[in-house]
Amino acid sequence: MSRRIRLGMVGGGEGSFIGAAHRVAARLDDEYELVAAALSSDAARAQSSGAKLHLAPQRCYENYAAMAQAEGARSDGIDVVAIVTPNHLHVPVARAFLEQGIHVICDKPLGISVAEVEDLRRQVQSSGLMLMVTHTYSAYPMVRHARALVQQGAIGDVRVVQVEYAQDWLSEPLELTGQKQAAWRSNPALAGPAGALGDIGTHAFHLAEFVTGLRTEAVCAGLSTFVPGRTLDDDVQVMLRFQGGARGMLWASQVAVGNSNRLQLRVYGSQGGLHFDHAKQDQLLFSKLGAAEQTIYRGSTAANSSAAAATRLPCGHPEGYFEAFANLYREFAASWRQYQLGSSQTGNYPDIADGCRGVAFIDSTLKSSASGGHWVAL
Amino acid sequence: MSRRIRLGMVGGGEGSFIGAAHRVAARLDDEYELVAAALSSDAARAQSSGAKLHLAPQRCYENYAAMAQAEGARSDGIDVVAIVTPNHLHVPVARAFLEQGIHVICDKPLGISVAEVEDLRRQVQSSGLMLMVTHTYSAYPMVRHARALVQQGAIGDVRVVQVEYAQDWLSEPLELTGQKQAAWRSNPALAGPAGALGDIGTHAFHLAEFVTGLRTEAVCAGLSTFVPGRTLDDDVQVMLRFQGGARGMLWASQVAVGNSNRLQLRVYGSQGGLHFDHAKQDQLLFSKLGAAEQTIYRGSTAANSSAAAATRLPCGHPEGYFEAFANLYREFAASWRQYQLGSSQTGNYPDIADGCRGVAFIDSTLKSSASGGHWVAL
Amino acid sequence: MSRRIRLGMVGGGEGSFIGAAHRVAARLDDEYELVAAALSSDAARAQSSGAKLHLAPQRCYENYAAMAQAEGARSDGIDVVAIVTPNHLHVPVARAFLEQGIHVICDKPLGISVAEVEDLRRQVQSSGLMLMVTHTYSAYPMVRHARALVQQGAIGDVRVVQVEYAQDWLSEPLELTGQKQAAWRSNPALAGPAGALGDIGTHAFHLAEFVTGLRTEAVCAGLSTFVPGRTLDDDVQVMLRFQGGARGMLWASQVAVGNSNRLQLRVYGSQGGLHFDHAKQDQLLFSKLGAAEQTIYRGSTAANSSAAAATRLPCGHPEGYFEAFANLYREFAASWRQYQLGSSQTGNYPDIADGCRGVAFIDSTLKSSASGGHWVAL
Amino acid sequence: MSRRIRLGMVGGGEGSFIGAAHRVAARLDDEYELVAAALSSDAARAQSSGAKLHLAPQRCYENYAAMAQAEGARSDGIDVVAIVTPNHLHVPVARAFLEQGIHVICDKPLGISVAEVEDLRRQVQSSGLMLMVTHTYSAYPMVRHARALVQQGAIGDVRVVQVEYAQDWLSEPLELTGQKQAAWRSNPALAGPAGALGDIGTHAFHLAEFVTGLRTEAVCAGLSTFVPGRTLDDDVQVMLRFQGGARGMLWASQVAVGNSNRLQLRVYGSQGGLHFDHAKQDQLLFSKLGAAEQTIYRGSTAANSSAAAATRLPCGHPEGYFEAFANLYREFAASWRQYQLGSSQTGNYPDIADGCRGVAFIDSTLKSSASGGHWVAL
Repeated sequence: MSRRIRLGMVGGGEGSFIGAAHRVAARLDDEYELVAAALSSDAARAQSSGAKLHLAPQRCYENYAAMAQAEGARSDGIDVVAIVTPNHLHVPVARAFLEQGIHVICDKPLGISVAEVEDLRRQVQSSGLMLMVTHTYSAYPMVRHARALVQQGAIGDVRVVQVEYAQDWLSEPLELTGQKQAAWRSNPALAGPAGALGDIGTHAFHLAEFVTGLRTEAVCAGLSTFVPGRTLDDDVQVMLRFQGGARGMLWASQVAVGNSNRLQLRVYGSQGGLHFDHAKQDQLLFSKLGAAEQTIYRGSTAANSSAAAATRLPCGHPEGYFEAFANLYREFAASWRQYQLGSSQTGNYPDIADGCRGVAFIDSTLKSSASGGHWVAL
Repeated sequence: MSRRIRLGMVGGGEGSFIGAAHRVAARLDDEYELVAAALSSDAARAQSSGAKLHLAPQRCYENYAAMAQAEGARSDGIDVVAIVTPNHLHVPVARAFLEQGIHVICDKPLGISVAEVEDLRRQVQSSGLMLMVTHTYSAYPMVRHARALVQQGAIGDVRVVQVEYAQDWLSEPLELTGQKQAAWRSNPALAGPAGALGDIGTHAFHLAEFVTGLRTEAVCAGLSTFVPGRTLDDDVQVMLRFQGGARGMLWASQVAVGNSNRLQLRVYGSQGGLHFDHAKQDQLLFSKLGAAEQTIYRGSTAANSSAAAATRLPCGHPEGYFEAFANLYREFAASWRQYQLGSSQTGNYPDIADGCRGVAFIDSTLKSSASGGHWVAL
Repeated sequence: MSRRIRLGMVGGGEGSFIGAAHRVAARLDDEYELVAAALSSDAARAQSSGAKLHLAPQRCYENYAAMAQAEGARSDGIDVVAIVTPNHLHVPVARAFLEQGIHVICDKPLGISVAEVEDLRRQVQSSGLMLMVTHTYSAYPMVRHARALVQQGAIGDVRVVQVEYAQDWLSEPLELTGQKQAAWRSNPALAGPAGALGDIGTHAFHLAEFVTGLRTEAVCAGLSTFVPGRTLDDDVQVMLRFQGGARGMLWASQVAVGNSNRLQLRVYGSQGGLHFDHAKQDQLLFSKLGAAEQTIYRGSTAANSSAAAATRLPCGHPEGYFEAFANLYREFAASWRQYQLGSSQTGNYPDIADGCRGVAFIDSTLKSSASGGHWVAL
Repeated sequence: MSRRIRLGMVGGGEGSFIGAAHRVAARLDDEYELVAAALSSDAARAQSSGAKLHLAPQRCYENYAAMAQAEGARSDGIDVVAIVTPNHLHVPVARAFLEQGIHVICDKPLGISVAEVEDLRRQVQSSGLMLMVTHTYSAYPMVRHARALVQQGAIGDVRVVQVEYAQDWLSEPLELTGQKQAAWRSNPALAGPAGALGDIGTHAFHLAEFVTGLRTEAVCAGLSTFVPGRTLDDDVQVMLRFQGGARGMLWASQVAVGNSNRLQLRVYGSQGGLHFDHAKQDQLLFSKLGAAEQTIYRGSTAANSSAAAATRLPCGHPEGYFEAFANLYREFAASWRQYQLGSSQTGNYPDIADGCRGVAFIDSTLKSSASGGHWVAL
């Protein structure tokens, strides 16, 4: 086996959920080694946090610019950087590392405005470097199974798409308590103009387009902020028009008490229907017109090759969020190895186009809601 | 015990699903006896169908007008008529029996235009007679439990309402095969201007308002007809604005392959959340902010008095659709007995106001969809 | 349609759960009319209880012997008697009515000793009359579906049978509070020598043999009485050896907190597996070796003819306990009509042979447990 | 953070499921680094397999004896060895490494005879070294929650324990096809005298004792071999008597078609009941007498501290088998760090006593079954 990919990280210090998730995802298949990071702008804390991650002191940086500069200059510098900062920094950080010829893995949403992500798209394209956006949910084996079924025509022409992402952790003004996750997500200066819409609505949107293979043409939306004193939306309801005539509904909420993190996608076509429920991540419901409902389990002989390629454990041994996340990292690693060989790299992971599309969805949805609920093209 | 209530039926001949359901519902608690009917406009068939139901030959009528006349004139005439015809006859039949002083139980939607149901409302009010609309789903014990929880403030202020009613029996053009149920429901002359919207969307709408106790103020809707050659809608997607600021989404479909008859209601408030799933009709999920999710089972000690009043069997002995339907009949019977005593009658069952509201919902939704998706007041 | 069958009832006065269930079951399809009963040994109460059921005063009897005598003598006497007394009276009451030429529907277990039920068997056989034992659970549509699958060889040779019936209503000494249901079931003079074993273990046993079509050859059992002061068993664990080499386990408990009434049967063969869960009564899980798991829904096109014959409502409209019970009554009615025509009657309902087998199972299980857990032939 | 623990592995070459699982588990929290292994007895293959795991060539050994010798002699030798061979080698390998002062992590069952594991116990005790047996299922957060509930008396005195572990992968004679996993597990020379009993029955047994805190006093068992030509058991049914009077049933099967890997534990006490289902690994059902059933989710505020200590991801982000496995490794690492400090080490992980107990369970169960089903003390 060739060497491990050298990974750097920006953001993800103590108290960060998503930084730890990226690190486990990178580690799971032993394809990466974390060797550098800008975990904190406080020098002492950057050092102590880095030490806990077995980083060498000289590669614990205080800011991303210094890190990009220094790592770009090292012969053993990082191959890839993972960006796990609040949203407003995604694009600037990505640009700094791309300039140094370093590939980018970035959390979602890719940026806070259409303009900045379109700039980034141009930079990615001209550089020829790779950029992945971590829409983790699209990497579950049974989501891959679903996508392949649709592609094969197993459900016929898509008619109806119902997607939802319901959480409840912001049912109360948690951001006022100083909870770090809530604080930056509720702050437009850090999170951008969208709350629930940006944080989880984009996941739902990506999932719907990923599985159906259809592009959304227009949205009609209503955003709400139910918790008094909150600035950004905590609930978003959207109707969707897809190319080809399919219609959909998307609901994302952070105030749906009883739903910790419930992502569901249902797709109905002229010949069949699919139901993926993230609370039952190792299965997919598949109904063919006139036949008995099938429950297809990850790891079983009934799972197709797309699912199998994203599977590590035998049927009945549950996989979860880390494994889905690790699928993205593993696929990105495979692309990176191809890149090293000079081959053109492709992958199932979300790329710059998906990232831009997510920000366009945010933009159109905000416009529709602001208009009092007119249909806005995407 | 006082005598059984004498029941007549209009519609519901052979091949009718809903007529048989009404009869079982009436029979379950032994409060009614079916003694007269207009089951068919064919004289011989009216007789033979009636004989199978143990009806006396002279009380098997060929048309509702004759039946209303004759029964109204008998000293032992029917007390109540159940109307289970296609939609376009609901109002004319109801009017004919009300004129004879006979109470009415009518299937939904109550009528095919706002004008005709408002006329009916005036007649009901001036007559002082009782009229029930059979929104069966509102009579499930755990729906009653849910409503009581909301009324008691157990979930705080309602924020989000998600309701859906998904079927798949019209995924293909069944109406072209001569299937009786499909045929009339797809024919505007018999069904009125709404397809899925009228047939099941009104159930979902009623359920949402029944449980939350909130009135919908406006709708923004998109109707689709996915099956080629079909005249009426087979899928409807609606966003809802409720009084007090709650927001909702309603989806009703007859082409959602894999869903035979899946009605679900979720209500989220500032303090808790509720989930009723008709596929698990004997339970209700209840989440209180910060506490463990509860599954409340019908018939258990955790079920409240509203649920208990609508329960016949001990916990773990499943009840179903017939029992919910019979709850409406039993409650209507109790009101009828009060009426006989001269008391003012009230009940949990849907009445003329609910019926009119359902038709108003159809009307506003059709208008919104026709406008290309503008918000229309209700 | 021919006339309704005239039904009498012994037992089932106020506070009786099972008496009311029998009455609803008889009424559901309008095949029976209740015309006589011995509801109470107290004369005044027998009258008042009867009046509530619309019975004529002269047909409200104070004891079963008088009732058998009088009804046997009437030209319009009852055709069938339903026996819903405590267990110790089942056989004496059945004998009294059989002597009058009246058919018998009897609750389970059929009797309290092998000797008395074998006597009854001889009487039934010599009389040529019909006797049904109400093992309700065998009449669920999806249980019928399961049985047919096994008969057709869909799961190959049966290897393993896991059956359980778990309740929790006797987790505390409810019988000491005067609760009527608990009191007689805990009293050997009324219930016979078995507690949970007789009350629900026999249902589980019948279900296992009904679906697999296999006879149990021997049992190895342990009975427990967990609630202090209780006389009869409240938990029973049994290992089973079936003809042909299949092995099974049966568990019945009245102290399994959290299980109101959870009956489950799983059957595994060389080619497939089945899972019926009474908490999801409208479905059956079916797994064929190497294929995706199927969920077969009652009322769907995937349900077989055995299921369809026991179905009243379309898919997705839940049926429950009353409908299963009514299936037995409906099948018994069909047999009765054949009997009137002089044809030999057969049915899917449990008959005298099943009743005797249940009592033999109780007997062997008691012996095995008393021996400290030896295998005892059945 | 102190240095990573140096880990070695014996067994676990290509085609091994459990070897890969151990490696991921060790890697997940970045507490270990794999530095040496005896992956294959073929020299070239040992090298190539090792290279894929980034091992130095000189630390890829051809046999465990040489590895123990060499690593014991190195100043930077392994701290801990993970043994993932077929069962017959567990004890010899463990002994060889313990002799070199190296701690042991061993897969289950610990050995193939009571005598050899009791010898091993003496060696462990005299050495003062640590030994962990990987009963992975006991490390799920919601299993830990369950155990704590029982310890706190939340369900009162335990009465009934139902545990089962159902698989179907050996429903056909897979071992005849050369499938590596099946081949050794079906070969007594490698697997020892027990098939399903040893492979999964011991997991079920451990789980039952772990959660209840009760010791099994006696077993009454029936083993079956359903697949023609198979040597070892593929289905085992056991009745259990626990100290204090609780009674239990244990079922383990490899021929239960439709169950890929279904482990379930239900425990009922005088005050409540618990249900853990490995197919819903992130939740626990908890019923308190007279209260609504609770579903307690991993990561939620309702999860107790025992669950929280074994949790990495927020509620609704599924964890699975790898995380449970990693919990054992993490706890073992914590003990190892304490050991280095000279402190006595304890942990929640299964140790030598649990390993011996599992083998004693196998032994008693085999004896009971061989006796035709007598109760045998444990």
